[in-house]
Amino acid sequence: MRKPRVLVTSGDPGGIGPELILRALADSEVGGLADFTVVGNPASFRRDAQALGLPLPRIVPAGGPSGVPLGRATAEGARAAVEAATAAVALMAGRDADVLVTGPVSKEALRLGGYPWPGQTEMLADLSTAGDLRVLLMAGPLRVVHVTAHRSLRAAIDGVTRASVLRTIELADGAGRLLLGRAPRVAVAGLNPHAGERGILGDEDEEAIRPAVADARSRGIDASGPLSADTLFPHAAAGGTDLVVAMYHDQGHIPVKLLAPGEGVAVTLGLPFLRMSPDHGAAFDIAGKGVGRADSMKAALRAAAAAFHDPEDFDADSAGKSS
Amino acid sequence: MRKPRVLVTSGDPGGIGPELILRALADSEVGGLADFTVVGNPASFRRDAQALGLPLPRIVPAGGPSGVPLGRATAEGARAAVEAATAAVALMAGRDADVLVTGPVSKEALRLGGYPWPGQTEMLADLSTAGDLRVLLMAGPLRVVHVTAHRSLRAAIDGVTRASVLRTIELADGAGRLLLGRAPRVAVAGLNPHAGERGILGDEDEEAIRPAVADARSRGIDASGPLSADTLFPHAAAGGTDLVVAMYHDQGHIPVKLLAPGEGVAVTLGLPFLRMSPDHGAAFDIAGKGVGRADSMKAALRAAAAAFHDPEDFDADSAGKSS
Repeated sequence: MRKPRVLVTSGDPGGIGPELILRALADSEVGGLADFTVVGNPASFRRDAQALGLPLPRIVPAGGPSGVPLGRATAEGARAAVEAATAAVALMAGRDADVLVTGPVSKEALRLGGYPWPGQTEMLADLSTAGDLRVLLMAGPLRVVHVTAHRSLRAAIDGVTRASVLRTIELADGAGRLLLGRAPRVAVAGLNPHAGERGILGDEDEEAIRPAVADARSRGIDASGPLSADTLFPHAAAGGTDLVVAMYHDQGHIPVKLLAPGEGVAVTLGLPFLRMSPDHGAAFDIAGKGVGRADSMKAALRAAAAAFHDPEDFDADSAGKSS
Repeated sequence: MRKPRVLVTSGDPGGIGPELILRALADSEVGGLADFTVVGNPASFRRDAQALGLPLPRIVPAGGPSGVPLGRATAEGARAAVEAATAAVALMAGRDADVLVTGPVSKEALRLGGYPWPGQTEMLADLSTAGDLRVLLMAGPLRVVHVTAHRSLRAAIDGVTRASVLRTIELADGAGRLLLGRAPRVAVAGLNPHAGERGILGDEDEEAIRPAVADARSRGIDASGPLSADTLFPHAAAGGTDLVVAMYHDQGHIPVKLLAPGEGVAVTLGLPFLRMSPDHGAAFDIAGKGVGRADSMKAALRAAAAAFHDPEDFDADSAGKSS
């Protein structure tokens, strides 16, 4: 069985990304878990490694030679981040790696650089010509996939359709297979209080969510719901299910951030490859100071290493043999 | 300093209420915390006390002599619950007690009895001619007051107005003074993801919540917000604030039930008296079997005993003297 190959993009080199990547990879409990390769401006990584007294990992160079100022949002920082992401998407398309981890990018810098994307997820979707993505948040025992994320609560309710819930359940099921190496149990939260109490407290649970769960079950997915969200999350946190489908941002983010503050990992589902990222931003205010917490980056690198299941392992498992 | 006087209604005597009350009061760590008096059908309490081998507390008789069948929703059970609540409201109005704790009532039984109320809170509001109530949920370190509770998520959004948020903040402030014996810090959650990101993700945070917080501050309340709900709850759970105002049912119920499953206490705000209740129903299926968990009832009785602050204590405190 070979080690998983994990690509790690720098994100904005003016931010905290390269520093956290170097510190996380230097951690003896992380660095050996996979074949890690960083993607970004070699000069930036060298500067940070020297300043922190840390070893330099294997680098795939991406981004021009120009220096990026440390500690603030700049067009140069955004350009370097986009170039690293572009190179990474090409490498993932060529199957040169198994999982992608991305360093943080700044909305403000993307705007200064004249780019059209509000965030890195939209950037990656465009670069890999994918659409209709979902965000999976992992923290401790909880794995939560969101039907919608960054839109108003009213717009999120409008986005709860039979088709969008079904797609989310399918992506959750696929992610569960990659993360756990088996078919997962997927529990679907209701939208309304008490999952609508059979239609008394809103229609969406009966009209969109319940049919979507039935569709998923008819496709062989171990899905259940809609379930009252306030009892589902304690149940999930106790190991009662493998993945939860949440209907909107706060419904999933509140329990995840409550159970494991600072250790969350975001997984993007629907791209042609598996992508993970820490759940924090570029944090220009503390970039280069060596004070940022690397917990979430370490969690992302650990999760990336653990998510890869060698196809040969699956074959051996299904044949009942040990390899 | 005298002991707080706490009234405890039976709830539906066909359900698990009387049994849990007897068991909770028999707990040596609970029974002595206050002057407890139960209100309900004496025959029901005697039957349960005998069956469980537990002492009989002081009883204010309420409800006719007819037996209520154990273990199912009946019109008789609902009638007994209503009679106990009616007597309790009268006693509270006469200042014969400081805090009211209510045993659980069944929606189904209320319907069978021909009563117009969907639940006990609406019943108490009617009996005491109060309106515009709020629910405070307490569990462990979290105290969360909800702007709206049992309505569809769409209707809950419509209920997020400057006036309703301000009233909720004021009730939270008042409850905090009773529960903590001092002016509390009140943190107000946003409605939309990231509290709307200054209007990019929905209008309500800027148009209703922020002005309501300003109104509250101008009235001397230590209120802050709107704050991104997914970062506010971890902050509150770590003791960073005294009370949280949540905009809708699941936003507040998910963190409370996640942090302290089975130990939640609901407090009704806006009645002419302080009322607490365990966060479970009548549980007819296990009534009389001695298997129900009394944790939430114990937590309610403990909270009721702790919520009462003798006015003389306040006076002594504010004068800087110890009594």
